[in-house]
Amino acid sequence: MTTRLNSHFAGRHFLQIPGPTNVPDRVLRAIDQPTIDHRGPEFAVLGLDILDRIRTVFQTTQPVVIYAASGTGAWEAALANTLSPGDRVLMAETGHFAMLWKRLAERLGLVPELLPGDWRRGADPEAIHATLADDRAHAIKAVCIVHNETSTGATSRIAEIRKAIDRASHPALYMVDTISSLASIDYRHDEWGVDVTVAGSQKGLMLPPGLSFNAVSAKALAASRQAKLPRSYWAWDEILEANRKGYWPSTPATNLLYGLQAALDQLLDEGLPNVFARHDRHAEATRRAVRGWNLEILCANPAEYSSSLTAVMMPPGHDADAFRSVVLQHLDMSLGTGLSKLAGKVFRIGHLGDFNDLMLMGTLSGVEIGLGLANVPHRRGGVQVALDYLVAARAAPKAIDRAA
Amino acid sequence: MTTRLNSHFAGRHFLQIPGPTNVPDRVLRAIDQPTIDHRGPEFAVLGLDILDRIRTVFQTTQPVVIYAASGTGAWEAALANTLSPGDRVLMAETGHFAMLWKRLAERLGLVPELLPGDWRRGADPEAIHATLADDRAHAIKAVCIVHNETSTGATSRIAEIRKAIDRASHPALYMVDTISSLASIDYRHDEWGVDVTVAGSQKGLMLPPGLSFNAVSAKALAASRQAKLPRSYWAWDEILEANRKGYWPSTPATNLLYGLQAALDQLLDEGLPNVFARHDRHAEATRRAVRGWNLEILCANPAEYSSSLTAVMMPPGHDADAFRSVVLQHLDMSLGTGLSKLAGKVFRIGHLGDFNDLMLMGTLSGVEIGLGLANVPHRRGGVQVALDYLVAARAAPKAIDRAA
Amino acid sequence: MTTRLNSHFAGRHFLQIPGPTNVPDRVLRAIDQPTIDHRGPEFAVLGLDILDRIRTVFQTTQPVVIYAASGTGAWEAALANTLSPGDRVLMAETGHFAMLWKRLAERLGLVPELLPGDWRRGADPEAIHATLADDRAHAIKAVCIVHNETSTGATSRIAEIRKAIDRASHPALYMVDTISSLASIDYRHDEWGVDVTVAGSQKGLMLPPGLSFNAVSAKALAASRQAKLPRSYWAWDEILEANRKGYWPSTPATNLLYGLQAALDQLLDEGLPNVFARHDRHAEATRRAVRGWNLEILCANPAEYSSSLTAVMMPPGHDADAFRSVVLQHLDMSLGTGLSKLAGKVFRIGHLGDFNDLMLMGTLSGVEIGLGLANVPHRRGGVQVALDYLVAARAAPKAIDRAA
Amino acid sequence: MTTRLNSHFAGRHFLQIPGPTNVPDRVLRAIDQPTIDHRGPEFAVLGLDILDRIRTVFQTTQPVVIYAASGTGAWEAALANTLSPGDRVLMAETGHFAMLWKRLAERLGLVPELLPGDWRRGADPEAIHATLADDRAHAIKAVCIVHNETSTGATSRIAEIRKAIDRASHPALYMVDTISSLASIDYRHDEWGVDVTVAGSQKGLMLPPGLSFNAVSAKALAASRQAKLPRSYWAWDEILEANRKGYWPSTPATNLLYGLQAALDQLLDEGLPNVFARHDRHAEATRRAVRGWNLEILCANPAEYSSSLTAVMMPPGHDADAFRSVVLQHLDMSLGTGLSKLAGKVFRIGHLGDFNDLMLMGTLSGVEIGLGLANVPHRRGGVQVALDYLVAARAAPKAIDRAA
Repeated sequence: MTTRLNSHFAGRHFLQIPGPTNVPDRVLRAIDQPTIDHRGPEFAVLGLDILDRIRTVFQTTQPVVIYAASGTGAWEAALANTLSPGDRVLMAETGHFAMLWKRLAERLGLVPELLPGDWRRGADPEAIHATLADDRAHAIKAVCIVHNETSTGATSRIAEIRKAIDRASHPALYMVDTISSLASIDYRHDEWGVDVTVAGSQKGLMLPPGLSFNAVSAKALAASRQAKLPRSYWAWDEILEANRKGYWPSTPATNLLYGLQAALDQLLDEGLPNVFARHDRHAEATRRAVRGWNLEILCANPAEYSSSLTAVMMPPGHDADAFRSVVLQHLDMSLGTGLSKLAGKVFRIGHLGDFNDLMLMGTLSGVEIGLGLANVPHRRGGVQVALDYLVAARAAPKAIDRAA
Repeated sequence: MTTRLNSHFAGRHFLQIPGPTNVPDRVLRAIDQPTIDHRGPEFAVLGLDILDRIRTVFQTTQPVVIYAASGTGAWEAALANTLSPGDRVLMAETGHFAMLWKRLAERLGLVPELLPGDWRRGADPEAIHATLADDRAHAIKAVCIVHNETSTGATSRIAEIRKAIDRASHPALYMVDTISSLASIDYRHDEWGVDVTVAGSQKGLMLPPGLSFNAVSAKALAASRQAKLPRSYWAWDEILEANRKGYWPSTPATNLLYGLQAALDQLLDEGLPNVFARHDRHAEATRRAVRGWNLEILCANPAEYSSSLTAVMMPPGHDADAFRSVVLQHLDMSLGTGLSKLAGKVFRIGHLGDFNDLMLMGTLSGVEIGLGLANVPHRRGGVQVALDYLVAARAAPKAIDRAA
Repeated sequence: MTTRLNSHFAGRHFLQIPGPTNVPDRVLRAIDQPTIDHRGPEFAVLGLDILDRIRTVFQTTQPVVIYAASGTGAWEAALANTLSPGDRVLMAETGHFAMLWKRLAERLGLVPELLPGDWRRGADPEAIHATLADDRAHAIKAVCIVHNETSTGATSRIAEIRKAIDRASHPALYMVDTISSLASIDYRHDEWGVDVTVAGSQKGLMLPPGLSFNAVSAKALAASRQAKLPRSYWAWDEILEANRKGYWPSTPATNLLYGLQAALDQLLDEGLPNVFARHDRHAEATRRAVRGWNLEILCANPAEYSSSLTAVMMPPGHDADAFRSVVLQHLDMSLGTGLSKLAGKVFRIGHLGDFNDLMLMGTLSGVEIGLGLANVPHRRGGVQVALDYLVAARAAPKAIDRAA
Repeated sequence: MTTRLNSHFAGRHFLQIPGPTNVPDRVLRAIDQPTIDHRGPEFAVLGLDILDRIRTVFQTTQPVVIYAASGTGAWEAALANTLSPGDRVLMAETGHFAMLWKRLAERLGLVPELLPGDWRRGADPEAIHATLADDRAHAIKAVCIVHNETSTGATSRIAEIRKAIDRASHPALYMVDTISSLASIDYRHDEWGVDVTVAGSQKGLMLPPGLSFNAVSAKALAASRQAKLPRSYWAWDEILEANRKGYWPSTPATNLLYGLQAALDQLLDEGLPNVFARHDRHAEATRRAVRGWNLEILCANPAEYSSSLTAVMMPPGHDADAFRSVVLQHLDMSLGTGLSKLAGKVFRIGHLGDFNDLMLMGTLSGVEIGLGLANVPHRRGGVQVALDYLVAARAAPKAIDRAA
């Protein structure tokens, strides 16, 4: 077994990074089933069921490709299947993960064009429109946007960006990373006209890491037939062919697929609208707590607040990682670190996945206690503000407006 | 699988009844191992290890008998092994469970003498002394006390009662029920001169229900050789004989014993003094929250506050079970019900077992949110009081006094 | 975790003692679920489901009482609920477990009358008839028979004994121990007019040990109202009362009940007739292998062969336990030991529970390899005989007669 | 849960395809632990431990890169990290998987040169030597060999091929696929001078599929700095950099890594030499059984027999898949299918991973029973031959020669 550093703590660890998230017991137990023959009839029943139902989560009727890989692999798959060496792609600097995707594109031999950003808001539909409108030659082959920037807690307005592309009458493919939004924040692959949606297992899908996804439009599929980037493991064609009968061309991650089946059961039992409303409620409660502590939310645009995580700015002169370390050592809670240029400046609270009101209250309490223990200047009572909000939200769910 | 009534909830259930308690993952996974031959050499290694280390938890060097049975079985075992039909036993009316033990004694043909109580405090050492001092004929064969009344959250002062017995120079056996105190509240079988300690698996030992225990003094063992109550399953003699080599005379509950081994690992890793201090801290935080809500703690004697649970009195005109139902339905938390004469009048918060600060804060938040949702008159802010206490307790652990 | 003596072995242990049996993965995983509130609404759903469906396995429409206890506890419960001190009970010396039950009766203050036996056959209906017919005063209050003697692999003919009792027009209660037959060998509580059926969880029910059962007739229930033996933990009245709503009076072994629910799913999915036919087939294949090795089956009456285990006699001069030790050390298989007067003289092959043809072939191969390694005189080829039988049995299942 | 087609069967499924293999319970339970923060201190302890000990299994002191991907991904990684578009690679047609690796190379833009083969033996060292000796310009950049052809049960002689390369004084990189040999058949990355060893989790490592591996020589690492194939997810540089502190650049498959840690415990406890000897013994017993049935082993060169699987040729006029279907339906055992040009002509028996003598005997019995049920012409008694061999092998392990 893993050596447990915190073995002097009793009780459950609070895994409140913005993913991997707390995996439900039913999902863990599903994964803990004996592996079966991935070419046998029993497997096909599993495969067909998953491949059918996963589409509901993406709000699509089009195929979803499932990889044994982490989310980074699905980023690569989206690009490698549809583009050719030297292709230009439009990307928006929304934060650390957008920059990683850009670097990945560069390593594949693509030429990203980056819309700069301040890491405090989503991608700007107007800037995207302007860039595409300027690109009369249609040299830009794809627009790649991160729906929910896991490093900042700011979302991009995917539907508006779709309209921006359309207004420019630009034929670029539209690719969206939903790694930390899928199954947490409303996302509509078909309705929003996305060509490739990238996702991972370890966030809203409530699984351990190890699976990732491409939801693929007909337009993307057509593009893949002309695309020249070399690819094999990621190639959609063979996978989609084998998927027809419920199989995969290479050995799939069977036990994680058991978990996916159980996670789909849970998500669809709760109902996606309820899942989204739950995340919205917890995010709003968290933001009220942050304001209650007199701390600042990193995301500067209330219309782009993330419902799956909240990044909180540390008061000047205080190190976010020192605070996180106090919280981990004393309270057995993991909070998200600030990434690259945000290192030390923010901590991130994950409030997504298999999560409920009382887990949220434990989480927020951990932050407030930790602020106290780490001597971070703050106003007491953020937890109480969140609590009052939850009472009000439950008492009259419709009457609670999103506060900015 | 069990049908889950609350399947519309995501996240973990908060099992905050005063037992069964939240079972640690490591214990559940240990139980989920293949059953082995209970007469083979591998079993003996398991058996000897458990039988040796379990004594540490009772703070005894004397034998501890382990039954496949719930705690009620261990009550019966304590009496059946040591007493004869018609024997008188002195009991104290500390609450529902004391009364159940009394009824059990009656069903076995014993004659309980009951010291009356108001269910708001522990057994009275003075009354015990007086009764025993009056019993010049030594007709009373045993004094049976519940250490921690699970129905009320009041403890009895076991060491003082020992002194009371001694002051009366009375030879009665001393039997103590520690079902909801063992491994949560400091308890010393040897030092306090207890003859039979009764315990169960599903509270501080952090196991599912299904195992129970008798720690047995030499005096109790001697008494068992004369005792006339019929017994077989409970009989210590054959069990102790088989235990010498690590076995049991009838098939033991092997998988629960796996769990016990894992639970002992966890308890002894944390260290009993740390375990007790943790429970004390959580209990004090809970009481401060209760007072913060302007509600009343059932236990009337601060010196007898329980560190494993707190029973809270409902304001007149409000039904505790209606409140509990709101909490279960809306917040997926189970609180303890009021038992027999306390039905509807109190609810009980379990804060024992595999539990930590953030789980406590989630729990207390659930109570405060529930009070709001159920329209129970209360003062806001109990959660905040508890939180402030935890900050202070962690910041300067020695400076925090037990508030009465 | 348990120290594994055989850690130099890879692969699965073959647990081929006649119980505890190999627990199915689905049952282990069910047990590995978080414990829930035993007084909450979710529990009642579980409780009512189990209490309803368990009756199917006993082939009864009458209540089945479930204890947190091993099978020995259910023996005690059967007697303690229905009899009074000094009552005479008729028992048959079919083997070690019948003798243990007798001793238990004596410890409870009952007066067993024992029909002697040679430990190679079931109870004799004629002898029972004769004894009861002689008992004109109806001093005998109960006839207690072990359906399947786990120590010998001989069954008693329960229906014929019922007729023997009836022919004698004797009012004694009829109690039957089905610990190693229930859910393995056809057994009919109602049709055969049994008053108390005793069973345990760790054999045909495919659970770990820790639960046991009393199926109770109306006549037994009536008797319990007059019976004078002291009892509390075992008392049917309070349990049946609480069971009406799906609960138990003392904390039930919740996690083992989860397992029972999963085991019922599996048993009823397979269908009891299929379960019995499977056990019959494996038992017949085993006996043919034993004869193929030129060894002797302990059970001397083919009409009483057990379908759940086969006890095999060692050639004179060879110690069964030395052989078993070789099998355990070299082949990682546990076989059953010879008990009391059979110690060293027989080994027992369990072929019950969650078991299939290939597990049986592995088991029989382990015996034949072990005979070779331990230099026990035998004829090679028993495994082949069993294999040929299984081919023939599957090819033309109806054409295979039970060979004597 | 997965719908179980074979739900009418009791007992354990026999997963005797040549991978995925039977996952040990301890590995499944390890995987069933809560996911932790992949950037926290506890994770680093896990990561460093695994990265250190996994090298022992490859018999290397050089780095091993671990991917969240199936084995196909590790094939791609080996090529993409070290080669440039248009590079020539020498491959040997040993069977289906060698051909798949060739196709993968083609898809990446490499130019495979294929040494033809009859799918009944390993790669020919002489032919490799001749080809390399002819390649005076050193246009061939890599020699890619499958150590153990999972489709045929023939191994290639990796050490001899190393010598053949050296005799030709050729600088090509040497890449070896050990997907179905690692941790089953002796394999020495360092001693045999392999530059990239490709492996997967779901065979000898006894894990579910979802992890794969590249063991990397200094020469391969140097080559990767010049290689021009685009790569990002597979790129060694960032992974090795992050691995230094026990982390990964993208989210690792944490729960499968828990399993890997447990699998390493088991493998290193048993000891690699014992693991290899066990596989050798089971393979030899299997081949003797096949000959006993008068069937033909596909592998035509005894010096190249695989110790992890045996492919068996069906008698003409009989379809291997029809036979496999009978075995699955009646006996709940999965056997490997014939792949591509072997479809219908062979079935494959996996005897690798977490496996022991009695599981093997169950497996071979399943084959013999199945041959009978499916009316496949064969001689009875192969099982007996295998059994006799195991007795002899255990009785005098050194005296048993490998029979050809």
